[in-house]
Amino acid sequence: MQQRTAQARWERWTQRPLLALAVVFAVAYALPIVDTSAGHAVTVACTAVEWVVWGAFAADYVVRLALTERRGQFVRSHWLDLCAVVLPLLQPLRLLRLVSTLLLVGRRAQMADQIRVTTYVAGAVVGLLMFGSLAVLSVERDSPDGNIRTLGDALWWSFTTMTTVGYGDHAPTTGLGRMIAVGLMLSGIALLGLVTANIAAWFMERFEKDDVEERAQTQAILALTEEVRALRAEVAELRDHSLRP
Amino acid sequence: MQQRTAQARWERWTQRPLLALAVVFAVAYALPIVDTSAGHAVTVACTAVEWVVWGAFAADYVVRLALTERRGQFVRSHWLDLCAVVLPLLQPLRLLRLVSTLLLVGRRAQMADQIRVTTYVAGAVVGLLMFGSLAVLSVERDSPDGNIRTLGDALWWSFTTMTTVGYGDHAPTTGLGRMIAVGLMLSGIALLGLVTANIAAWFMERFEKDDVEERAQTQAILALTEEVRALRAEVAELRDHSLRP
Amino acid sequence: MQQRTAQARWERWTQRPLLALAVVFAVAYALPIVDTSAGHAVTVACTAVEWVVWGAFAADYVVRLALTERRGQFVRSHWLDLCAVVLPLLQPLRLLRLVSTLLLVGRRAQMADQIRVTTYVAGAVVGLLMFGSLAVLSVERDSPDGNIRTLGDALWWSFTTMTTVGYGDHAPTTGLGRMIAVGLMLSGIALLGLVTANIAAWFMERFEKDDVEERAQTQAILALTEEVRALRAEVAELRDHSLRP
Amino acid sequence: MQQRTAQARWERWTQRPLLALAVVFAVAYALPIVDTSAGHAVTVACTAVEWVVWGAFAADYVVRLALTERRGQFVRSHWLDLCAVVLPLLQPLRLLRLVSTLLLVGRRAQMADQIRVTTYVAGAVVGLLMFGSLAVLSVERDSPDGNIRTLGDALWWSFTTMTTVGYGDHAPTTGLGRMIAVGLMLSGIALLGLVTANIAAWFMERFEKDDVEERAQTQAILALTEEVRALRAEVAELRDHSLRP
Repeated sequence: MQQRTAQARWERWTQRPLLALAVVFAVAYALPIVDTSAGHAVTVACTAVEWVVWGAFAADYVVRLALTERRGQFVRSHWLDLCAVVLPLLQPLRLLRLVSTLLLVGRRAQMADQIRVTTYVAGAVVGLLMFGSLAVLSVERDSPDGNIRTLGDALWWSFTTMTTVGYGDHAPTTGLGRMIAVGLMLSGIALLGLVTANIAAWFMERFEKDDVEERAQTQAILALTEEVRALRAEVAELRDHSLRP
Repeated sequence: MQQRTAQARWERWTQRPLLALAVVFAVAYALPIVDTSAGHAVTVACTAVEWVVWGAFAADYVVRLALTERRGQFVRSHWLDLCAVVLPLLQPLRLLRLVSTLLLVGRRAQMADQIRVTTYVAGAVVGLLMFGSLAVLSVERDSPDGNIRTLGDALWWSFTTMTTVGYGDHAPTTGLGRMIAVGLMLSGIALLGLVTANIAAWFMERFEKDDVEERAQTQAILALTEEVRALRAEVAELRDHSLRP
Repeated sequence: MQQRTAQARWERWTQRPLLALAVVFAVAYALPIVDTSAGHAVTVACTAVEWVVWGAFAADYVVRLALTERRGQFVRSHWLDLCAVVLPLLQPLRLLRLVSTLLLVGRRAQMADQIRVTTYVAGAVVGLLMFGSLAVLSVERDSPDGNIRTLGDALWWSFTTMTTVGYGDHAPTTGLGRMIAVGLMLSGIALLGLVTANIAAWFMERFEKDDVEERAQTQAILALTEEVRALRAEVAELRDHSLRP
Repeated sequence: MQQRTAQARWERWTQRPLLALAVVFAVAYALPIVDTSAGHAVTVACTAVEWVVWGAFAADYVVRLALTERRGQFVRSHWLDLCAVVLPLLQPLRLLRLVSTLLLVGRRAQMADQIRVTTYVAGAVVGLLMFGSLAVLSVERDSPDGNIRTLGDALWWSFTTMTTVGYGDHAPTTGLGRMIAVGLMLSGIALLGLVTANIAAWFMERFEKDDVEERAQTQAILALTEEVRALRAEVAELRDHSLRP
């Protein structure tokens, strides 16, 4: 119990700093893509910042592992976190570092009970749109056949993809760009499902409230309780009478 | 209570005139876009009408604020209305005035209890299709690369966007046009969710009616009540017997 | 009651012949569109058959109106049928006759209780795909910019439209063709909603069955009944004892 | 009962070997399409393997038919299996053999209770994506107007089709290719419905848990039980008193 409390305390304390670091990562990731005139020094600095943020999340994973008692179970139930920590080490690709950090941020955010589902989903959608746009832009800009060359085009393409509209005026042409697109499409389907399910749940809740059968039951139970109380009163009267004489 | 009644009475009285004004706004907005041969005088008159309608909605906001007792709470829970009132003042853009008026009409319509959800949604969809078409047409017509140049094309594009079909034979090319498109796409996702949720709710309602467990419970409760009544009769008989001698 | 029975009897008797006539209409409508080498005589004969089928449905409407007692209510609740009957008279357009007959067939099919919802929807989807393809083909074939010129292209386009995929390799260019497309898109959204709602209803039914709270309640009610029965036995024993001496 | 057990035992025993054969079929089907430089010998060997796997599934159908007592009912309720077995014999088309084997694998997998719905659906989606890509590639590669010529393009097109995004940068142009596309679109709609229904069911389950009315009922039933117990104690006291003297 003590160990679990220690882990939970750590997770509560580090939550806000880690989210702040995620914002720092976002800026460091976006800067060299958006500002193409940025010099070599800026790019190097941004890469360094990205590695530092990734390092912080990796350290967080290690600390949480150390604070848990059942380590085997923690590793097994957090295998996605482990992959996200190890992957950028194997191949220092920028896109991989982005996906890893997004995964780690998402896993940490899910852990926090305060953040409600809707807020989490809205955050995830906005984050996916932003990072999807930036990642596609950085990948497709250098492709000879590419047609996504400005941040505006990339954002527009992300929106048409996630809402499954898909005009086709812009579409990724490279393998990496298409993988990012597949990620956006799947999130789009999840988004559509979430919106529909939310509305359906809200509808159900409304019509559940005036469930006739349920209310009839409650009425029947209350009537029965009244009946039993009357019976008890009668029995009490009977007892008083038979005890008195 | 008196204040709340005053506000509610105002809202009921002004509802129909404001909806009529919204129709006037629609005509004034559509006229210079549809009729390209309209002279300068017509355009100026329409702009004036738009400002008058916006003014009426702004005045309605101020009156409602004045009639409320808890002004702080009203401002906080109606911050979207406040933005819609203030925004066109900061930058007298035509599109902004459209969005603001649509927002204010939507907020007022939501307030009215008589207008049911389905009617409201159907109205919102038709309104969004119409205004989306007009707004995109006015924005894209002057773009050199634009491919939405007639009202027919704009309406057709709105439909393909809102149903998330997205042929791509027509697509906005300017930043403003694309923002309008994003609005239409999001409404399209909401529309799809609403249609699905409506059908699902209708399905559920049908199969909820013959819920076996629920009816078994009701039967059990009724049987139990019968049992208790029989018990009470026996106790009454017992009491009569023990009181008699 | 007698009048209502007469109407119901008529509807049951004429249901199959009218559906057969609808199939005849389908063939007469499709023939001149699919077989472009068909001579003038065939086209004239097909048009005549179409008018005859429409006439049969119009006569069915009149007979049903005559058999009802509350005629005002019948006209009001069947205003769509009335429009479908009258419209082709005002403007003898072929497409209008198609839409009218489809509407009348749909309204009659809905009336029949035997035809279940899923069967009806599946039939409606197949019918819409078929007639949408034929109607678009006949409209777009003669358009100078049209790109739907064979039956295969028309069917393919219908599928991509109804599933909201919308590649955009084929798209209607005329006003009439786009109206048909809007009809297909809206049916597509309805289809998607129906599929989702069906699956959701099936899921709910499954998880409703093992509703924990409900079963706990049933257990509690049964335990309570047992308790009351034991109480009744005790009271009976008490009565036997107090009556004996 | 004995017959049914024999059939069930056969189905349990052959399940894993048949799934393994399905994987072998997948490899034999994919090899000549992916590796275009494969010689004639490889193609012939792969075709032979395909026929062997199809033969194994056909034999499985015959054995299951032989083990059932009510053969007429088995044939009627498994008519799709019969079609899948017979079809490749009538016309030895490669695509038909693929569809037949997929159908047979699907029907056998559905039979196994161990494989849960979600696993089955995920497997079906991945399988459809893979085979859809391969089938379209083999069909469209030789079409003169075709624009799906590499495995990467085929996979990308499958994803854009199944998620109903449909950019239109790649689209099948032949009749066969379009039939495969229609299959993918319909699976896409089913997938979307499943995702939405899953989320909706999960939402419902959550809000069902804190159903206020239900819990109020449980409280009422427990209170009533308490009441009856108290009554029983009183009656017991009364009996003890009336028995004692």
